[in-house]
Amino acid sequence: MFVPTIMGQATPEQQAQWLPRALNMEILGTYAQTELGHGTFIRGLETTATYDPETEEFIFHSPTLTAYKWWGGGLGKTVNFCIVVAQLYTKGVCYGTHPFLVQIRDEETHMPLPGVFVGEVGPRMGFHTADNGYLGFDHHRVPRMNMLMKNAQVLKDGTYVKSAKHGKLSYGTMVFVRVELVYEVAFNLAKAVTIATRYSAVRRQCQPRPDQPEPQILDYVTQQHKLFIGIATAHALQFTGYWLWDTFARVIGEMKEGKTDTLPELHALASCLKAVSTSDAASLIEQCRFACGGHGYMASSNLPALYTFVTATRTYEGDYTVLLLQTARYLVKAWEQAEEGKAMTPTVSYLVHSAYNRKAKWNNSCEGITRAFYAVAAGKIEASVNSIRRRMKTGLSFEDAWELTTVQLVAAAEAHCRAVISDTYWKETERMTSSSSASVRSVMRQLNELFLVYWVLERTGDLLMYSTISGKDVIALQQRYEELLSLLRPNAVGLVEAFDFRDEILNSTLGAYDGRVYERLMEEALKSPLNAEPVNQSFHKYLKPFMQGKL
Amino acid sequence: MFVPTIMGQATPEQQAQWLPRALNMEILGTYAQTELGHGTFIRGLETTATYDPETEEFIFHSPTLTAYKWWGGGLGKTVNFCIVVAQLYTKGVCYGTHPFLVQIRDEETHMPLPGVFVGEVGPRMGFHTADNGYLGFDHHRVPRMNMLMKNAQVLKDGTYVKSAKHGKLSYGTMVFVRVELVYEVAFNLAKAVTIATRYSAVRRQCQPRPDQPEPQILDYVTQQHKLFIGIATAHALQFTGYWLWDTFARVIGEMKEGKTDTLPELHALASCLKAVSTSDAASLIEQCRFACGGHGYMASSNLPALYTFVTATRTYEGDYTVLLLQTARYLVKAWEQAEEGKAMTPTVSYLVHSAYNRKAKWNNSCEGITRAFYAVAAGKIEASVNSIRRRMKTGLSFEDAWELTTVQLVAAAEAHCRAVISDTYWKETERMTSSSSASVRSVMRQLNELFLVYWVLERTGDLLMYSTISGKDVIALQQRYEELLSLLRPNAVGLVEAFDFRDEILNSTLGAYDGRVYERLMEEALKSPLNAEPVNQSFHKYLKPFMQGKL
Repeated sequence: MFVPTIMGQATPEQQAQWLPRALNMEILGTYAQTELGHGTFIRGLETTATYDPETEEFIFHSPTLTAYKWWGGGLGKTVNFCIVVAQLYTKGVCYGTHPFLVQIRDEETHMPLPGVFVGEVGPRMGFHTADNGYLGFDHHRVPRMNMLMKNAQVLKDGTYVKSAKHGKLSYGTMVFVRVELVYEVAFNLAKAVTIATRYSAVRRQCQPRPDQPEPQILDYVTQQHKLFIGIATAHALQFTGYWLWDTFARVIGEMKEGKTDTLPELHALASCLKAVSTSDAASLIEQCRFACGGHGYMASSNLPALYTFVTATRTYEGDYTVLLLQTARYLVKAWEQAEEGKAMTPTVSYLVHSAYNRKAKWNNSCEGITRAFYAVAAGKIEASVNSIRRRMKTGLSFEDAWELTTVQLVAAAEAHCRAVISDTYWKETERMTSSSSASVRSVMRQLNELFLVYWVLERTGDLLMYSTISGKDVIALQQRYEELLSLLRPNAVGLVEAFDFRDEILNSTLGAYDGRVYERLMEEALKSPLNAEPVNQSFHKYLKPFMQGKL
Repeated sequence: MFVPTIMGQATPEQQAQWLPRALNMEILGTYAQTELGHGTFIRGLETTATYDPETEEFIFHSPTLTAYKWWGGGLGKTVNFCIVVAQLYTKGVCYGTHPFLVQIRDEETHMPLPGVFVGEVGPRMGFHTADNGYLGFDHHRVPRMNMLMKNAQVLKDGTYVKSAKHGKLSYGTMVFVRVELVYEVAFNLAKAVTIATRYSAVRRQCQPRPDQPEPQILDYVTQQHKLFIGIATAHALQFTGYWLWDTFARVIGEMKEGKTDTLPELHALASCLKAVSTSDAASLIEQCRFACGGHGYMASSNLPALYTFVTATRTYEGDYTVLLLQTARYLVKAWEQAEEGKAMTPTVSYLVHSAYNRKAKWNNSCEGITRAFYAVAAGKIEASVNSIRRRMKTGLSFEDAWELTTVQLVAAAEAHCRAVISDTYWKETERMTSSSSASVRSVMRQLNELFLVYWVLERTGDLLMYSTISGKDVIALQQRYEELLSLLRPNAVGLVEAFDFRDEILNSTLGAYDGRVYERLMEEALKSPLNAEPVNQSFHKYLKPFMQGKL
């Protein structure tokens, strides 16, 4: 977090001064923005940095308990420097939040500097080694030159100089992190589904036929239903992540040339993809854990850690609901532009054709399904717009009408995102397998089709509302879905092997390459500190007196 | 676990011998059934108890690693006695699994007895204090009279005497635990939604109007959408749990009089209700955690512990998928009986009228919605039956056709369960509020209606397939749902206060009665052992050499 932030918001001189030390690990840093009382609403941050022209320093202060920074990774007991986001005051005027490089610990003794209150935030659901910290200030002084001055400056005399550049340029880092998260969670989902699929090939259960051994649980259709969508989604999110990365690189390139009109589209895209991919990946990882029964609950399976790690990504760097509402803002504007006949950017051009799409006859092809998903998104955006307008007619302001429609708006943005993921996954599968062997292409297409049909069956209500799909089509697709599970079964283990994870990375008793599931579970159990002695002290101290009625 | 099992499966003499000691806590016990290699498939258990008429003892043995018992609560380092389920061998014949009372530790020294291998299974996702253990035997000898002989016996000479009673009588304890779980998870969901609702009344965020303070996040419609369904579901599951308990008590009463024909219905009901209530409660607890943003991830919020505790109930005492398939077996049989015009037990009598229900004109009343949910269940059962029959026509056996249809069968059993919950919640609300004040009745009915409309909107696809609901109805119900959120907002805090939890029970920084959220978060953070000294030893040992490039 530290290095990209310095790179993004510091002047070249500041970069020259600090980056080598940061890269050389002489100074360890973190980013401290979120406060105990404020996360999403950055304008509401309470930490102040007040400029004192006498000493040419900023005075950092936490006026309230809720102003304490909270969450910074490594902040608790590790870092000696921080990028602190604070309300900048100079000459009695507040200029809003700005980033500053703040030393918080002595470089030699590691003791917190005077006026700095820093510590660890206490146990969390996961991320146990993240050393998340809190940070407060009591009139802590920082040299003027520690303000990251790429986009705005405070001169020696305290004069504030606004950035000449586009105000949205600072979105860069934020969007970068969200883009990265899409394939980070795809990667973790791939780990979980590798663990669960390998375990399902080892584990045996029940005896449908008295004369035969217990089948591998991977042979049960309900198990395939839980796992194969996980494999497919890992592909879908990975492909979408790469595609988003290319889009990001292109937009950043254009921005450097002064062209910023594609930034809102990228922002809308990255927001919904971050929200939906983190949420889907977390749910599917948890589904992998469920698919491993009780053993999935063992920490040594690594599935609990994967879940608690990925579920955090649903909240940090932009909460799920907040991000989908940001995308919804963009979609509602795009809808209005489409109504006015204005030119549309690529990812929302389908809104122009939505009336056409909706009447287009349903067909069960991948192309037909993808088109119908766009029709659903368009239908939901239109319904949201209609709800807002209906409410405005009763005298409500746009903002109040918007607020009352947010449940629908979140659903519309999610539908848009699913259409983009489905479309990207389908097109990228076609593109990437065009030169593959026929057998590889066939499996990749089956997986892609499974993904699309799965989502048709998950969203029959929307499709029956906004496309020409019929009840008969739904029944036929249910059959096709079950067929695809059977078709993919022989390649299930091969598909997860293709993710090519080393045992050290999976770190799982259930998912190791050698399949020694039970041996590894027992080996890990024997390492439990509780097993170091046959009878714990707690027996003599508590249990025995209790059992003898003496407690 | 220990006492009910002894009561259920021991003879009166055994109960007289062991129960007083168990109740007096002189002996601590647990139930050890699940093995490393077998959970769901009890017939596959590998631990053997072989009768030796010479010494009148059973010889307990674990022939393989996978035969080791795994999970027993308190087994790791605490209990000295176990109810062990093992394959009973006598006179060279295996008579299947039976329960035995086995002493595993010395009563004085607490040392494991010779031939007993026992220890703790290692860290888990939650239940950190459960002391779950493993247990293996090397020819460990147990007196004959420790076999729990209420339902079957082994005589001194080794003769096996089968139970004269109904084979299904041993279902009692299993069903009892599942019935209990329905309201246990309702209770935990109520805790989570109390924490999240109180926090949402304290937390403020954003500034939609520049001249006004930041609103409570409980005023955001998306937040209400996340929380109010949790309050409603806590009521729905609690009411259903009580109703199920009454049904259980009645059936057990009938069984004691020799009438066992209502047992299959109870078993089918308890199975699906256990599956759906544990799964829904876990999801909604997690949704409460999401609704608290980053602070919900803090262990001190207690939401992570509530989730990891309740999510385990989805697996133990009968896995979600396995239980729904057990209910599906019952439903498919019931469907066939309805086709044959046979008499139906109460909870499936709707299958007789399914054709009628499906054609009945949709209406938006609670009664109309409940009826439509039954029509959906009937439609899905019929579709499953049709799939099985279609597959059998291609030459497959019933079991193979069943297996290929399991994805649909799970969905059908879930739909059945949702219809039962909706119906019970609606009827119980009407009954229980018949003598309430008009204002209480009004709020309880709003909550009930919110629940029903929520599930209509979640299941529009099924309803468009299997009822006469129209697209216009769906739009109208979306509006009604949003209205209900507004109507319930003023009573949201009152509704969770009515659960009447003490702070000690909620154990949450975010959910305490006094609303001192931020103070409590900081107080808990300061208790973190990492904060005991300003600079940890790890700095001198690792961090400093690392920062100086000496590591």
